[in-house]
Amino acid sequence: MRIAIDAMGGDNAPDEIIAGVLQSIESLSEDDELILVGPEEIIEAQLPSLKSRKGAVSVVHAPDIIAMDEVPIGTLRKKPKSSIAVLAKLAKRGQTDAVISAGNTGACVAAFQMRMRNLSGVNRPGIAVVFPTPGGPVVICDVGANIACKPIHLYQYGVMAGVYSKHLLGIENPRVGLMSIGAEDAKGNEVVKKARELMKSDSNMNFVGNIEGRDIFDGTCDVVTCEGFVGNVILKLTEGLVDGLFKAIKYELMEEKLRLAMKFKHIMKRIYTKYDYNTYGGAPLLGVNGTALICHGASESRTIRNAICASKRFYTEKINNKIVEYLSDTCVRTTDG
Amino acid sequence: MRIAIDAMGGDNAPDEIIAGVLQSIESLSEDDELILVGPEEIIEAQLPSLKSRKGAVSVVHAPDIIAMDEVPIGTLRKKPKSSIAVLAKLAKRGQTDAVISAGNTGACVAAFQMRMRNLSGVNRPGIAVVFPTPGGPVVICDVGANIACKPIHLYQYGVMAGVYSKHLLGIENPRVGLMSIGAEDAKGNEVVKKARELMKSDSNMNFVGNIEGRDIFDGTCDVVTCEGFVGNVILKLTEGLVDGLFKAIKYELMEEKLRLAMKFKHIMKRIYTKYDYNTYGGAPLLGVNGTALICHGASESRTIRNAICASKRFYTEKINNKIVEYLSDTCVRTTDG
Repeated sequence: MRIAIDAMGGDNAPDEIIAGVLQSIESLSEDDELILVGPEEIIEAQLPSLKSRKGAVSVVHAPDIIAMDEVPIGTLRKKPKSSIAVLAKLAKRGQTDAVISAGNTGACVAAFQMRMRNLSGVNRPGIAVVFPTPGGPVVICDVGANIACKPIHLYQYGVMAGVYSKHLLGIENPRVGLMSIGAEDAKGNEVVKKARELMKSDSNMNFVGNIEGRDIFDGTCDVVTCEGFVGNVILKLTEGLVDGLFKAIKYELMEEKLRLAMKFKHIMKRIYTKYDYNTYGGAPLLGVNGTALICHGASESRTIRNAICASKRFYTEKINNKIVEYLSDTCVRTTDG
Repeated sequence: MRIAIDAMGGDNAPDEIIAGVLQSIESLSEDDELILVGPEEIIEAQLPSLKSRKGAVSVVHAPDIIAMDEVPIGTLRKKPKSSIAVLAKLAKRGQTDAVISAGNTGACVAAFQMRMRNLSGVNRPGIAVVFPTPGGPVVICDVGANIACKPIHLYQYGVMAGVYSKHLLGIENPRVGLMSIGAEDAKGNEVVKKARELMKSDSNMNFVGNIEGRDIFDGTCDVVTCEGFVGNVILKLTEGLVDGLFKAIKYELMEEKLRLAMKFKHIMKRIYTKYDYNTYGGAPLLGVNGTALICHGASESRTIRNAICASKRFYTEKINNKIVEYLSDTCVRTTDG
């Protein structure tokens, strides 16, 4: 399998990206190939050991870089030789089986969507993120690819994230919840209410109805479907709140007793490990015709290593085929969207 | 000042509500009057001590109750003698200066909006909740009153929550952030982008631009404006996540050592006290022509006591006058909304 990685994506590029690529080599098979995409001279300078592993890692030159805060659409046009644009083109030409980037999320979504096209039956791709919770992993889709969401998109996010949950996380019959502002049928905006009807009409979906923000962490469901704006707020709020809360606890402990604080450090580390999103490597852009993973901007080498493994599992488990099959069988259709 | 309280609102009604009312009496002035609204026989049975405090607490009979999960609009029509409907009518007729309920939020919003009408210059009321954060209190508006939000509403939520922050929380020049999915101008949906322009054009507003979910807890701003669906998800997610995280910590500590867990209990309690939303009592429905506080469904007696004090401050500080003044001076106008 060929996996192309954006060497210049994320806050810690290229060092952590390249380190992650090198770390992943030992867990790959002989016929796997990693393709680093970015400015040749920068990558080669960082890769003195590359030559000794000839065949395992190759480089595709992409001289430009899209910054994390650039506006996606215009930038992609202006920088056709950026690592993200080249990554997408490799996928389009069938020169790679998977693409991975920790770069500008908006640019990744736009480039991958444009070049890879959608899977048959999918109206709009969505980013799925796995939230580690005390009740097990919860997949939330979409967290930012689509901020003009229609009911059919929300339904399809439930389908796609459900397939992901079942076949990659091993959840037998994933319970799908629809993010709203109250459990009752009448709650939510018009898009949510219509999506609810679509989801209810699919007897193959284990739909548990509307859920609320608090339900993500209480074991109510395995999959959450929501529009990209809301999902993005959920994702970032969770990050910020966990950080803030740990800081608050640390502060209180320091006030109390240094010895207690030291002991607690160990506990915090254990919790961090248990609920570490880096474990899942990256968030798949579900619905594109290919394997595309978008990683956190703060990705470390282990995130990239895990993303490489995750892309391999996504590819070999044929997640996309399973999504297409599900959608070709479903009775849920809409002309709108 | 006359303050009317829904005796039947919330999961712990009427016991905790009535207990909160009795607790609040000592902090009130001689000419303050509390009006308990609900089924007379239930309230009187719970109030044996009422007679000895004649004048301080009176009862207005409202035989019906709107359940927490009933659909607001239809229910209000069907139950004109419910405690929430009667509460709203008292306000309309000028028979009370403030209304407080921990009951069905949707029904409260609908009833108060319909009977009390909007303040001059306000297009749509919004619920403002105070989040206690390490950087100080952050006011978030709206958290669920308005799920069909227009740019002018978002702008006005910033104005109203800013007035609240300044005059009730003592923040000198509150920094207002607009909830979006990235700091850059181009990020967000159409409503957010247009709201951003309105906010930028108001030189009296200390607008800090787009914020993201994580910024609520990192001291970036004092006021967050967002549409009701997003705000409601934020509110409930925060509750659920804090609970879930404390449970996870407790679990790890119990695994470790019981003695450490016991010590940590004390720390947790301190954090709970410091970041306890019950302190703020209730969330004002900003923008209605009157003083209306909506309390958490799980309100305890101290929440109600604090809400009564908060309504008094809201009323005596003339928050509504300050909102009307601000909006009559602003250059921000729109024909849409």
